[in-house]
Amino acid sequence: MKITVLGTGGGGRAHAARLLQLGHEVVVGTRDSEVTLGRTEPNFMGIEPFGQWVADYPGIELMNFGDAAAGAEFVINGIDGANAVRVLSGIAEHLAGKTVMDYAVPYVYNPERAHPWPTPWGVMPALDPVDHDSLGEQIQRALPAAKVVKAGVTQEQETVVNPQSVGGGDHTMFIAGEDAGAKEQVTELLRAYGWQDVLDLGPIVSSRGMEMYAHMHSAIQFALGGARFGMKVIR
Amino acid sequence: MKITVLGTGGGGRAHAARLLQLGHEVVVGTRDSEVTLGRTEPNFMGIEPFGQWVADYPGIELMNFGDAAAGAEFVINGIDGANAVRVLSGIAEHLAGKTVMDYAVPYVYNPERAHPWPTPWGVMPALDPVDHDSLGEQIQRALPAAKVVKAGVTQEQETVVNPQSVGGGDHTMFIAGEDAGAKEQVTELLRAYGWQDVLDLGPIVSSRGMEMYAHMHSAIQFALGGARFGMKVIR
Repeated sequence: MKITVLGTGGGGRAHAARLLQLGHEVVVGTRDSEVTLGRTEPNFMGIEPFGQWVADYPGIELMNFGDAAAGAEFVINGIDGANAVRVLSGIAEHLAGKTVMDYAVPYVYNPERAHPWPTPWGVMPALDPVDHDSLGEQIQRALPAAKVVKAGVTQEQETVVNPQSVGGGDHTMFIAGEDAGAKEQVTELLRAYGWQDVLDLGPIVSSRGMEMYAHMHSAIQFALGGARFGMKVIR
Repeated sequence: MKITVLGTGGGGRAHAARLLQLGHEVVVGTRDSEVTLGRTEPNFMGIEPFGQWVADYPGIELMNFGDAAAGAEFVINGIDGANAVRVLSGIAEHLAGKTVMDYAVPYVYNPERAHPWPTPWGVMPALDPVDHDSLGEQIQRALPAAKVVKAGVTQEQETVVNPQSVGGGDHTMFIAGEDAGAKEQVTELLRAYGWQDVLDLGPIVSSRGMEMYAHMHSAIQFALGGARFGMKVIR
């Protein structure tokens, strides 16, 4: 399948590398591919320049967002929460009719809302939107002709693409969205990643809970001293 | 131990009955014990009158909030989120120096914020406070001399008091609070309930994640068709 991952961050790279391994045609989208490939220094989070990283994955193509979306049969949104709605709105015509899997969390680092936190991050970030709206719903509203499926929100993306690496894969993946066919497509991809327990939480409004779980994820991460864990629904 | 459960709702009753079974001296606190005992009809949620219920549990005493708190060695807050801070503030002197385990979620049914939801409830309730504050933190601020421990937030209270009833008890309980000794006391109680995996999420600020998980809990409940499930951290 021709799959486009929008965004060149760590999460997007995890999906792109795994999709290549699974035999898909993988395109990564970025704002300006020349700028992205021109970078030679790690970014503020210490992530190596995309050009260096992609050299280890021959076959992954880098394109500007619009071109990347236009050629895709399936799209994964890896654009950070603060920019996702604006960027996706700008390429809405290229996403019409397509399944868009979105794992973004709408973190904001508003210092008036962030809480001092005795952890490596130093703060507990806040979310916007939160509670009575969600990024998943905003993206679906911004892309009325696309089929948005929220998935892979409650785990690190390294865990999302390799669930077997945590507890032998015995944990739960959650999905939500309005379109049953799109959710089936996302479920197939997740099963290819190795997920055995995919729980459909219903309509896209369930993005609220999935995004708001970010605070629990952070707290558990700091309690355990690492983010590579899963949550299993025991029933 | 002399344990007081504040609140006469379904959650408070679950704790009171289980604590009696475990051999504790159990007092339940209410706004006005005569009014509570005078009720003869089920409440709006269909819960039977307290007087009828308590007849099956000889030994459980009902008192007004202040008297109930004054005689306690350990307190469980089962007052609903909308009223908890006001009520607890009014009896702060009787809670000073004591461990207060709080499992409340600050649900609000503001129709402008609640979202239509294709479930038995009909709406997805909203939370207040949320994200940059929490009820657990508010209660700790309102009771500076008490030791507040947030626990039992992410499960139905029937599951909290009988974890073995779900998946043989193989799931995770989360706690948070500022006082290590109080968290140890709460952990002992939880172990007596049957919890084997109690994960300390650190300071009371982690109440945010525990309370915000309510949206996920609701979504999972509706997906599964029932609320008797647990979440296990797989690591």
